[in-house]
Amino acid sequence: MVIKTSQLANVKSTVHFSCISKSNQYRSHLPLKPTTVRMSMTQTHHTHPYWASLQADIEAHLKQSITIKEPLVVFEPMHHLVFNAPKTTVPALCLAACELVGGQRNQAISAASALLLMEAATYTHEHLLLSDRPKPKPVITHAYGPNVELLTGDGIVPFGFELLARSNGGENSERILRVMVEISRAVGSGGVIDAQYRKTMDSGSDGDEMCHVEGIRRVVEKYEGELHACGAVCGGVLGGGSEEEIERLRNYGFYVGMIQGMLQRGFKDDNKEVEETRKFALHELQFFKDREVDAISTFLNI
Amino acid sequence: MVIKTSQLANVKSTVHFSCISKSNQYRSHLPLKPTTVRMSMTQTHHTHPYWASLQADIEAHLKQSITIKEPLVVFEPMHHLVFNAPKTTVPALCLAACELVGGQRNQAISAASALLLMEAATYTHEHLLLSDRPKPKPVITHAYGPNVELLTGDGIVPFGFELLARSNGGENSERILRVMVEISRAVGSGGVIDAQYRKTMDSGSDGDEMCHVEGIRRVVEKYEGELHACGAVCGGVLGGGSEEEIERLRNYGFYVGMIQGMLQRGFKDDNKEVEETRKFALHELQFFKDREVDAISTFLNI
Repeated sequence: MVIKTSQLANVKSTVHFSCISKSNQYRSHLPLKPTTVRMSMTQTHHTHPYWASLQADIEAHLKQSITIKEPLVVFEPMHHLVFNAPKTTVPALCLAACELVGGQRNQAISAASALLLMEAATYTHEHLLLSDRPKPKPVITHAYGPNVELLTGDGIVPFGFELLARSNGGENSERILRVMVEISRAVGSGGVIDAQYRKTMDSGSDGDEMCHVEGIRRVVEKYEGELHACGAVCGGVLGGGSEEEIERLRNYGFYVGMIQGMLQRGFKDDNKEVEETRKFALHELQFFKDREVDAISTFLNI
Repeated sequence: MVIKTSQLANVKSTVHFSCISKSNQYRSHLPLKPTTVRMSMTQTHHTHPYWASLQADIEAHLKQSITIKEPLVVFEPMHHLVFNAPKTTVPALCLAACELVGGQRNQAISAASALLLMEAATYTHEHLLLSDRPKPKPVITHAYGPNVELLTGDGIVPFGFELLARSNGGENSERILRVMVEISRAVGSGGVIDAQYRKTMDSGSDGDEMCHVEGIRRVVEKYEGELHACGAVCGGVLGGGSEEEIERLRNYGFYVGMIQGMLQRGFKDDNKEVEETRKFALHELQFFKDREVDAISTFLNI
């Protein structure tokens, strides 16, 4: 159920960042070009109609689930932050993976919504004003003070788990628990939190993030890589995929996330490393040759 | 599965705080005597051997689960905060409820551990230094900076859900999902987070919390009351209790939590309201007349 380092090591070993490919003597502190590293989720251009359709379904599901009700002081900020935090491709990939293995979109809609909630909470806390880290540069304006943002993030996470736990129709509980373990690990101390710690350690005191190459590799893997891997696995599990299909989806998701991470850090779409990673991803999709892969393969070009 | 306001309204209606019992004209801003309100979990004297035995089992289970491993920067603070945050009676009550309905302690040990983790995360974030709220007064010294404390709390919560999701032996998944919904609600926006918002709103700018009586009532209900209700319900569910037993346990847990909340706010043990609440709690236990209630009734005298 978890990414085995040994498993991924084989396929990941040929993915290099351009800034470390020239010489090992620069491995430790070489600035990553063409931009400094920004780890926050950024608003990317998800214009593909398939992504847009999946995303619209997830947001519709969440709008039904998060009504603005009493206590307003709790639910208004939650509503605001969930629907205004920058979107990623993780939740939609969950639905796409579900459909790829023959499942119905609605079988994975709660997991996709939970993933969106987790990312909104992460975004909120990542941009919280704290005294001992660089001032964050949020994509959306701070509409609330730090205390409300802290509590809102803290409230969103259990709500995500609740939404998922409640989605059990009675026959599906084993799969839901499996998905919960996947999500917990991806967003927890061995995943996103680990990446966030590393971001802090690698940050310059003036707010610009320096490129410690190994640190960046780790951040992209743990952040966009494992989150997308998790999204794809959750969809595969809930859609009833076989174990082999689920593991192929994990790898595919990981590569999609690596590409996203690289593009968000300023790599061009035709960058050699991006193109190589795309090839690895397509290789994983070949396993699904008897399935309809056109839809999910659009995630490589978002 | 959730506390129905109408259900509890009947039984709660006769529980009054002493500071509001004299006259309604003082209802809005009367200081709560004998101390100002402190909402944080405080180290109470859990000296009863039954509580101590339950608590020791939970901590032993957690020590096996939270090893100090790589990345140390993540797991060392987690270990520190989980085992040093003040203890409450919530996790132990979960085990006691499981035993009351005929279950084995180990059936509820993961849920009890998850509850302890959630409380540790709550404590950690409640004492985070933020610019727009009174400076917290933690019982334990800040061993880490705000950023690490923020991330540690963020990491502990999904770990709690993971621990619970992984505890499924294959036959128990429905009950585990039900318990997850209970825990999510108790620690989330309708429970502890709601209480924390209210605490902030009621706080004086100098760090002393004023007593807004209705606010305090709500805080104690949402905080200690519902958390203990949740702990008792989780134990009842996982121990295989009947629906009626589970609802009686919810009420019993709620009263235990109300008593804890009042005592932590400086009410004496022989205070009239405390004694009345204790009577209500004992009344709930009468339902279990064919069970062994001596053990769980010790929670009324901790």
